[in-house]
Amino acid sequence: MKETGDDRNMNEIRREPLLGRWVSVLSESMKPEDYLSSMEPSAGGHCDLCEEESGGSEEIYSVRDESGKWLVRVVPAMVPVFSPEGDLGRKGVGIYDRMNAIGVNEMLIESPQHNVQPEDMGSDQMLRVVETFTSRVIELEKDVRIRHIMIHKNCGVPSGDACGHPHSLITATPVIPKRVKEELDGAKQYYEYKERCIFCDFMREEERLKERVVMETPYFLVFCPYAARFPFEFWILPRIHNCSFRDITEEEQRDLSETLSIMFRKLRRLLKNPPYNYVLHTAPSRIPRRNHWHTLGEDFHWHIEVMPRLKSIGSFELGSGMYTLTTSPEDAAKYLKEVSHGD
Amino acid sequence: MKETGDDRNMNEIRREPLLGRWVSVLSESMKPEDYLSSMEPSAGGHCDLCEEESGGSEEIYSVRDESGKWLVRVVPAMVPVFSPEGDLGRKGVGIYDRMNAIGVNEMLIESPQHNVQPEDMGSDQMLRVVETFTSRVIELEKDVRIRHIMIHKNCGVPSGDACGHPHSLITATPVIPKRVKEELDGAKQYYEYKERCIFCDFMREEERLKERVVMETPYFLVFCPYAARFPFEFWILPRIHNCSFRDITEEEQRDLSETLSIMFRKLRRLLKNPPYNYVLHTAPSRIPRRNHWHTLGEDFHWHIEVMPRLKSIGSFELGSGMYTLTTSPEDAAKYLKEVSHGD
Repeated sequence: MKETGDDRNMNEIRREPLLGRWVSVLSESMKPEDYLSSMEPSAGGHCDLCEEESGGSEEIYSVRDESGKWLVRVVPAMVPVFSPEGDLGRKGVGIYDRMNAIGVNEMLIESPQHNVQPEDMGSDQMLRVVETFTSRVIELEKDVRIRHIMIHKNCGVPSGDACGHPHSLITATPVIPKRVKEELDGAKQYYEYKERCIFCDFMREEERLKERVVMETPYFLVFCPYAARFPFEFWILPRIHNCSFRDITEEEQRDLSETLSIMFRKLRRLLKNPPYNYVLHTAPSRIPRRNHWHTLGEDFHWHIEVMPRLKSIGSFELGSGMYTLTTSPEDAAKYLKEVSHGD
Repeated sequence: MKETGDDRNMNEIRREPLLGRWVSVLSESMKPEDYLSSMEPSAGGHCDLCEEESGGSEEIYSVRDESGKWLVRVVPAMVPVFSPEGDLGRKGVGIYDRMNAIGVNEMLIESPQHNVQPEDMGSDQMLRVVETFTSRVIELEKDVRIRHIMIHKNCGVPSGDACGHPHSLITATPVIPKRVKEELDGAKQYYEYKERCIFCDFMREEERLKERVVMETPYFLVFCPYAARFPFEFWILPRIHNCSFRDITEEEQRDLSETLSIMFRKLRRLLKNPPYNYVLHTAPSRIPRRNHWHTLGEDFHWHIEVMPRLKSIGSFELGSGMYTLTTSPEDAAKYLKEVSHGD
């Protein structure tokens, strides 16, 4: 039923004409009955991610120990939405807009061990994960068709994870996604008005008030944002202003790995292993483009947003974009600060 | 831990400073342990919505048969986020913005029977529901503090429903929610450029192509949108241009009730009783405001968006606002069109 022509076998992305949001559409539709099993968590057994040479999946990158055994691996996602081959093929279709789903879906397998939780891997292993993120971002930014790279993770079934083996995802897209563009626009507007970075202002305000701060480390501030979307949501911001994660220093990488380990341990202890998502927000690929966010280096600030998924996203959230915090960020910060991260 | 002062015991709403999205914050925080049970569906037993005089909940509105027995009832929501009493109290708090959560949360109990599904109630009962929506919108619009009224429904656990008894929700807010504002802005921009309603253009295009149309009735067009967010998502648009649901005619009410019954039966048969959400999108309260969307009557068009919840919303969707359609709208429309709505 899809558009025919040269793009026949490619996934496409379509622009929602009212809001400007892009959605990807698979070239092979799933049938109604295919959705029924996906509503149940997968029932253990064989795990493709445990194996070295699994399902013919080519290895994109790995970190190995002295004996050559892999510690962290990057492989293509099992059901990729985006494809690295081809051109963008951007065009109108009647009153609508489409292009080919050019881009990259990679999966970062965080450990050879199936059952280890990220917070139990230790900060050395977490450091390998963070270093791998950095390497992949630097590599993927070389592709001129790529506009934005997102590092993100689903942990636990309601978050979108159905695998069990610790992994995170790297998604590179040929457009700047709507939510990212809104964030860049918001930061730019604030900068135009105040000539200050809004994220640096957040940090100054949160450190002044202290009531939403969870952790202060040499290089990072962890706090529950004033108007979070999810109860117990927290953000991790680098203290030194930088728009792009790709410029992270070695000291920052080490500190971030430690911080992530501590925060995920706190989350597990406080909320009994909750499902969560995190998203690393970084500047779009910095290939020069005419007159596009030329203050981006000053106005944007990379950071990580961690969102526990304790409540369903219902019709009100979908229809309004408004969320309800059943725990205030002040109380959430207090609980997160006070709970131990020990075993 | 919340701000103190006169607003001490009121829920508040806070403006997310970067994106302009509002979130509501309860004055009494839930504790970490309170979230654990909410991750399980509620285990049957007593149902407050079945009873006439339940939990002291005052009746706001009802439709009754000749013997005085209720057929449809509107009651205050059990855990209201918004409160109709008080003033807005809009103010800055440091670098942030807050106001009191003035507004209305009503629950429309769609039937006295606990286990009847909306699609089995019959179109006469569905008509009572639609008429009740209309009455409530007309009544709530009289409050000058209310900016927007949303009618919406969660059906099935992953959609945010944990009750089982058929009900829908009416939420009136003192701000125009971000997602609604985006839609109004999108429609206005299109109108400024083309001098045509984008929704009327959608209908002309869909009727021309036919490939995404599911149903054509005298007063409504049902189609799967070109760039939907959810597989099998469909929109119901009134053929006669009108920005506001409150102006729906009797004939349209009857036709809409029939259309909803048919579409929910199709959805159940095709996807084996899937969880879904729907949201009725209508213009903001039309109390005159200076220079605010003065073309709104021409550029906006009320409609209903029905979103089956077959896949989790994961980190990529949360971080990017991009969605993946694992079934193309063309194929979804074909399946929905062909499946019977009989028993």
